[in-house]
Amino acid sequence: MFKSIEWKNNTLIVLDQRLLPFKEEYISLKTFDDYLYAIKEMVIRGAPLIGAVGAFGFYTGIKENIPLNKVISSLQSTRPTAVNLFASITRMNKAFNNKKDLLEESIKILEEDEYSCEQIGNNGLTLFNKPVNILTHCNTGKLATCGIGTALGVIYKLHEKDFIKNVWVDETRPRLQGARLTAWELKKSNVPFTLITDNMAGWLMKNKQIDAIIIGADRIAKNGDTANKIGSYSLSVLAKHHNIPFYIAAPYTTFDNNIKNGEKIPIEERKKDEITSPYNIPITQDYPVYNPSFDIVPREHITNYITDKGIK
Amino acid sequence: MFKSIEWKNNTLIVLDQRLLPFKEEYISLKTFDDYLYAIKEMVIRGAPLIGAVGAFGFYTGIKENIPLNKVISSLQSTRPTAVNLFASITRMNKAFNNKKDLLEESIKILEEDEYSCEQIGNNGLTLFNKPVNILTHCNTGKLATCGIGTALGVIYKLHEKDFIKNVWVDETRPRLQGARLTAWELKKSNVPFTLITDNMAGWLMKNKQIDAIIIGADRIAKNGDTANKIGSYSLSVLAKHHNIPFYIAAPYTTFDNNIKNGEKIPIEERKKDEITSPYNIPITQDYPVYNPSFDIVPREHITNYITDKGIK
Repeated sequence: MFKSIEWKNNTLIVLDQRLLPFKEEYISLKTFDDYLYAIKEMVIRGAPLIGAVGAFGFYTGIKENIPLNKVISSLQSTRPTAVNLFASITRMNKAFNNKKDLLEESIKILEEDEYSCEQIGNNGLTLFNKPVNILTHCNTGKLATCGIGTALGVIYKLHEKDFIKNVWVDETRPRLQGARLTAWELKKSNVPFTLITDNMAGWLMKNKQIDAIIIGADRIAKNGDTANKIGSYSLSVLAKHHNIPFYIAAPYTTFDNNIKNGEKIPIEERKKDEITSPYNIPITQDYPVYNPSFDIVPREHITNYITDKGIK
Repeated sequence: MFKSIEWKNNTLIVLDQRLLPFKEEYISLKTFDDYLYAIKEMVIRGAPLIGAVGAFGFYTGIKENIPLNKVISSLQSTRPTAVNLFASITRMNKAFNNKKDLLEESIKILEEDEYSCEQIGNNGLTLFNKPVNILTHCNTGKLATCGIGTALGVIYKLHEKDFIKNVWVDETRPRLQGARLTAWELKKSNVPFTLITDNMAGWLMKNKQIDAIIIGADRIAKNGDTANKIGSYSLSVLAKHHNIPFYIAAPYTTFDNNIKNGEKIPIEERKKDEITSPYNIPITQDYPVYNPSFDIVPREHITNYITDKGIK
């Protein structure tokens, strides 16, 4: 089995997710700039994984004698939406001020995330008592975390119990994390799945092919509004219309009590070529596009939050 | 300006839509097999255009002395969902039985469609009294018809009147008719547009960026349920949730009074590589997929039908 992240011989080894599912290639992050590039260019992605990689990046920046403020601001400017990165930076900053060992602290963050995935999976299990068809969006699995995943972690646990009939995998345009990452890792684990384009989900709900939707989260505001991959909002409206349970699976660190509601969560806009020419594959010409990377699911569309501390 | 279809020197010249927006290449349909290939492989597509091309195909098949039954069944087996092809075949069969000139009848079908697009456009205009942001799905324009289009015909008429602020163009996975065809023809006509991925439409509705949705139709059942490109159903649920008018623009020939409701409309499933490797561009590996080409919008989600005979 692969590892999305591993600390080894004083470097962080990460799987280059941009090359999946065609190539399984690992790269070593050595310099602080390597870390910034890996997060910004989405060599690695997924809110919890970004948080862990960011911690090792912090450690590396300080080791390179880069001024603390510069380390913090550079890391903060890579990806604005997911809160886990900011939580990691805050925690590492505190460790720095308390003169703790920064490498130890990074490794702790990694291991805690691994454990929290286990807890999310186990807690998610309690919501199901028979085999089901689940729809998921984007990638929230082993490739998005340091463990088995959040939403996909629940799916792995359901599969162990023989409770997965089929996982409907949204391809997740524009970056195709469903088609390229989720499909790849579900296949590695022999979980039955079917890939669809994002615009098919509603039609499947109408035809009673979906028993529940489980997705991850990049940031959860104090009132419960949840930022997640673009397309999540539409799914939540469709789920509500069809009376299908809609679950958010996320570690407690994804809750951001400093943000009142979804309107205050910053939404990252990414480059236009993700739409016109994803991964340098030209699918159309250089037309005007709009490319928000996330949207906000309102509290009232969410059935439950599946967290490492229980069901909320 | 380009022509999607033209009868010239005893052959039908059509624009090969599979190559757009990168190449504008015309091909001549000469043999009956050429016609079957062009429809089946989507060299041309769009319900009204398929209807017209089918008529010339019928004429050509009979000219080649292919038995009538064979001509009819071969054409019918190309694409099952759009009714216009079946209406054309029925009409040509009647002309054949009445010993009419089949070429003249085909040209009439072409010209009538051109005229009906004008009427749809003019009728659609009456629904708007100020500049608006319109969302559309798939391609329903000059590339889908013998005239200015159905839903896109209305948009062209609105643009002439300076009533288009912006057209949100759904890329329309899996075949990307929005990204490749609609964007291409709107740009040719200088209509302002912005390309989005299909899963962004709901988020734009939530943020009040869409005043109305206009799409085409492949078949409209007696009760008003409408088959159209996959993704239409989801859009209709999202529009209802956000109180946004949802219009179907289609010629009267798209109404199929032989079919009671949407459940009886056959839904074409297409090859899996449209999802994993559209236009031979591999975006992921050969995973299990589901690929319905159409879905059904229920009558109660439709605000009005914009037809060549008026607003319904």
